[in-house]
Amino acid sequence: MDPYVIQMNRKGSLPSLLNVHVNIGGKNSLPGKGKGRKARWSVKPSAMANNTFNPIRAIVDSMKVKPNPDKTMISLSIGDPTVFGNLPTDPEVTQAMKDALDSGKYNGYAPSIGYLSSREEIASYYHCPEAPLEAKDVILTSGCSQAIELCLAVLASPGQNILVPRPGFSLYRTLAESMGIEVKLYNLLPEKSWEIDLKQLESLIDEKTACLIVNNPSNPCGSVFSRSHLQKILTVAARQCVPILADEIYGDMVFSDSKFEPLANLSSNVPILSCGGLAKRWLVPGWRLGWILIHDRRDIFGNEIRDGLVKLSQRILGPCTIVQGALKSILRRTPQEFYHNTLSFLKSNADLCYGALAAIPGLWPVRPSGAMYLMVKIEMEHFPEFENDVEFTERLVAEQSVHCLPATCFEYPNFFRVVITAPEVMMLEACSRIQEFCEQHYHCAAGSQEECDK
Amino acid sequence: MDPYVIQMNRKGSLPSLLNVHVNIGGKNSLPGKGKGRKARWSVKPSAMANNTFNPIRAIVDSMKVKPNPDKTMISLSIGDPTVFGNLPTDPEVTQAMKDALDSGKYNGYAPSIGYLSSREEIASYYHCPEAPLEAKDVILTSGCSQAIELCLAVLASPGQNILVPRPGFSLYRTLAESMGIEVKLYNLLPEKSWEIDLKQLESLIDEKTACLIVNNPSNPCGSVFSRSHLQKILTVAARQCVPILADEIYGDMVFSDSKFEPLANLSSNVPILSCGGLAKRWLVPGWRLGWILIHDRRDIFGNEIRDGLVKLSQRILGPCTIVQGALKSILRRTPQEFYHNTLSFLKSNADLCYGALAAIPGLWPVRPSGAMYLMVKIEMEHFPEFENDVEFTERLVAEQSVHCLPATCFEYPNFFRVVITAPEVMMLEACSRIQEFCEQHYHCAAGSQEECDK
Ligand SMILES: Cc1ncc(COP(=O)(O)O)c(C=O)c1O
Ligand SMILES: Cc1ncc(COP(=O)(O)O)c(C=O)c1O
Repeated sequence: MDPYVIQMNRKGSLPSLLNVHVNIGGKNSLPGKGKGRKARWSVKPSAMANNTFNPIRAIVDSMKVKPNPDKTMISLSIGDPTVFGNLPTDPEVTQAMKDALDSGKYNGYAPSIGYLSSREEIASYYHCPEAPLEAKDVILTSGCSQAIELCLAVLASPGQNILVPRPGFSLYRTLAESMGIEVKLYNLLPEKSWEIDLKQLESLIDEKTACLIVNNPSNPCGSVFSRSHLQKILTVAARQCVPILADEIYGDMVFSDSKFEPLANLSSNVPILSCGGLAKRWLVPGWRLGWILIHDRRDIFGNEIRDGLVKLSQRILGPCTIVQGALKSILRRTPQEFYHNTLSFLKSNADLCYGALAAIPGLWPVRPSGAMYLMVKIEMEHFPEFENDVEFTERLVAEQSVHCLPATCFEYPNFFRVVITAPEVMMLEACSRIQEFCEQHYHCAAGSQEECDK
Repeated sequence: MDPYVIQMNRKGSLPSLLNVHVNIGGKNSLPGKGKGRKARWSVKPSAMANNTFNPIRAIVDSMKVKPNPDKTMISLSIGDPTVFGNLPTDPEVTQAMKDALDSGKYNGYAPSIGYLSSREEIASYYHCPEAPLEAKDVILTSGCSQAIELCLAVLASPGQNILVPRPGFSLYRTLAESMGIEVKLYNLLPEKSWEIDLKQLESLIDEKTACLIVNNPSNPCGSVFSRSHLQKILTVAARQCVPILADEIYGDMVFSDSKFEPLANLSSNVPILSCGGLAKRWLVPGWRLGWILIHDRRDIFGNEIRDGLVKLSQRILGPCTIVQGALKSILRRTPQEFYHNTLSFLKSNADLCYGALAAIPGLWPVRPSGAMYLMVKIEMEHFPEFENDVEFTERLVAEQSVHCLPATCFEYPNFFRVVITAPEVMMLEACSRIQEFCEQHYHCAAGSQEECDK
C-alpha cells in the first residue's frame, strides 16, 4: 500500500473472462485416459484466481512513478479515513472492545452468521416501522466486502448478469467476474448529481439479470440519492422483478443539507439485501465487521435465499468475535457528537475542496453530499499532453507529489477521485498544488479561444 | 449452535453436484431472446449456494431429539476448546489485544494479505533452516478456514479433483463442492493409528488431481503422523507431481510422547501450502486469524500461484487488524507453560477417556496423540437396535444427554468422535453414561457367544 513507488501499467482495460488458463495437468499426462501419471510438475492458478482482478489494488500497488522529491507526498487515493490520524474512532468504541476482551465470553466460535445477541443489536438499531428487522434478518460478515460477496454468491450463478453503477466501486466487478457473473454497467449522470440514468438502466435488464446494485451514498461520487430518486429506482426494480443489493456502507454519512434514506424503508415489494458495516461511520475499516440486512416483506427471497446465505457464511465462519461482542456497546454508547464531528469535518473539507477545484480552469468538480469522496472531471481537451486520467494523475504524482485515483479505476475515464478525509491544511495544500499543476499544463482547446480568456 | 433440540434429518448423504437449480429468470421470460422483461418474481439461490453444504453444521444445527431431562447435557460435539470455560487463553494474549487497541495504530485497512510486520513475525516464528520462510511467504487470512478456501481456490479449477482424507474435516468437501471441484477420498487406517493407505491414495491420482490435503495432527482422529510416514507421503506427492495443502491448524498440539513435524520441513521438492492459525493452540477460535505459509523451494508454484493468492485475498481484505497488531506479542510473550498446560490437560483427558471407553464392550477407541479429539468405533453388530452411528449418537443424547458427533460427519460411518476438552469430571461422567448406554443396548452378535462371555 506504499504509494511512493508508482507505475501505472494498465490503461483501464479489464481482463476478459475468456482469457483463462485452465489447469488440466502436466504436459505428459495421457490425454483421453481417465488416469495418467503426471511425469512433471505443472501447477497453474485456477480460472477463478485468474479472473480475480481488483483494479484499484492493481493500479495502486503497481505504481512506480516517483513523487517529486522536493514536495512531501499527499496521498488522497485510499478510502481509509484512519490514514492521517486526524479521525480516530471514539474512545467508547475502543473501550467496548476491551470490555469484550475482559469478559472472556467472546473467544470461542460464534454461529457462522454471528452471535444472536449481536444480530439483535443490529436489527434493533436499523429497525424502523416501514422496514422492520429482527435478528433472523441479520447476517454478520467479515467486512462489507464479504457481505457483498455473499449477496452476489447467493443471488447470481455463472452466466447471469448483475447491474453495476458506472462510476462505481470496483469490488462489484472483481467479485462478479471471479464467479463467472457478467457485469452490465448502468450510467450515473454527473450533471444530475450522479443520479441513475433510469432509462438506460432499464434497457440493460434481461431474463438473466440476477440483481441490481445500488450504492448510496456513493463511492466514488460522494452523492446521495433523494427520496424521490430512490422511489424511481424501486419502481424500475419492481416492474422488472429484479432484487436489489443496496450497498449502504456509507449510510448515515451525509452532510447536514441532505438526508440519507435506507432504500428498504421506501419499498414494501422489492426484496432488498442491504450491506453495511462498521468500517466508515465508526472509522475502523481494519476491524472487518460488516452485515447483511435482509428485507423481504413479500417473501420473495423466502427461506431459500436466507438458507443460501447461511450456508455460504459457513465457509469461513464470520467476523472476529471480539468485535461482535463489542457491537452492543459500540452502537449504544458512541456519542452523537462523534458522528456529528466526523460529518462536519467532512462537509467543511468537501466545501473547501469543491471551491478550490471549481476555480481551476480545466477541472470540473461535482459537489458531494456525503461519504468521503469528491469526483473531478478533467477537461482533457485542455490537457493535450496527457492521454487520459491515468496519465494525468500519474504526472500529478511525479510533479506535485499529490496522489488521487484516476476514475478509470471506477470505469469512468477522464475524472479523478479525491479523498476528503485529510486534515484541512493538507487538503488546501493539495488543492493549490493541483492548481499549479493544471496551470502548467493547461492549453486552450482548438477553436474555443473565448473559454480560455474567461 | 444450541444442541439441546436435536433432530438428525440426514443419513450421511451429501448433495450431488448435479442436483443444482440454476436461476435463469422468471417463468414468463422470453426464451431464445437476448432480452425479455420478467413478468413475475422468481429469485432462486445460485448453484454455488445450493452446492455449499456443511454436514457438521447441518447435522448439529438441525438436531431435534430432546436430551434426557433428568440428566444435565454434556456436549462433546464441537471442536471449540473455549465452551467449557476451563481453557481460557493466556492473559498475555488478551493483553496483546488491548495494547494493539490502545496504540490506535491498527484501525485502518491493512494490506489484504496482512501487515508486513505481522507476516514477518509469523515467518520468523515458523522459519527453520530446512524450510526457510520470509514475510513474502506468509498470507494472513480470516481463520484457517479462509486459508484453506484460498488454497483450494488458487490450486483447483472446476472439473479438477482434490484428495481428501477419510475420515476428515468436513470443510474440505464443503469448500471444494461449492467451487465445482471433485473430492476423492483416501483412506486413513484406524488399525495403523490412522496412517494413510498410501497405495490407495496413489491409485486415486489422475491428471486432473490439483492437490492433496494432508491434515496432521488430525481432526477427527487426534492422530499424529511419524516422520517416516510423512516422508512416504512426500514421496508419493513427488512421484505424482501433486502439490500439498497441509492443514496444520493443530500443529504443535501433540502429547509428550509424540513429536509434531511440519510437513514442509521434510521436503525440498514438493510445493506445499501450509495452513494454520491462532484458533486452537492459542484457544481463540472466534478471533478468526489464520495463515498460509508458502513453501516452494523448487519454484514450482512460482509467482503465478503467489499472485493468485494475493488476488484472491483482495476479495474480502484479510483478518481483523487488531488481532494482526497483537500477533507479535502473542507469539513472543505467551509463556511456554501455557502451551504445556493445555497439552498435559488434553493428554490426561485423552488417557482417561481412552481407558474408560476401551473397557466398554462394543466400543473400540483409537488412542490419540494430539489435537483434541478421540475416535471410537461402534461395533454395530452388537447394537442391532441402531441402524448406524447417527442413530447411536442420537439415542445417546435422548437417553444419556451426552452428545458426540457421529463420524458420518467425517464420512466414516460406525464411529463417533469425542471432544476431549471438557473438564475431567465431565469427561468421566460422560464416559460412565456412555458405558451405561452401551450396557443397556449391547447384544451378543449371532454366532459369537464366546465374545460376549469374556
Ligand atoms: C462502496 C463501498 N462498499 C463496500 C466497501 C467495503 O467495505 P469494508 O471495508 O467493510 O469491506 C467499500 C470500501 O471502501 C466501499 O467504498
Ligand atoms: C482440521 C481443521 N482445519 C481447519 C479448521 C478451521 O480453523 P479456523 O477456526 O481457524 O477457521 C478446523 C476447525 O475446527 C479444523 O479442525
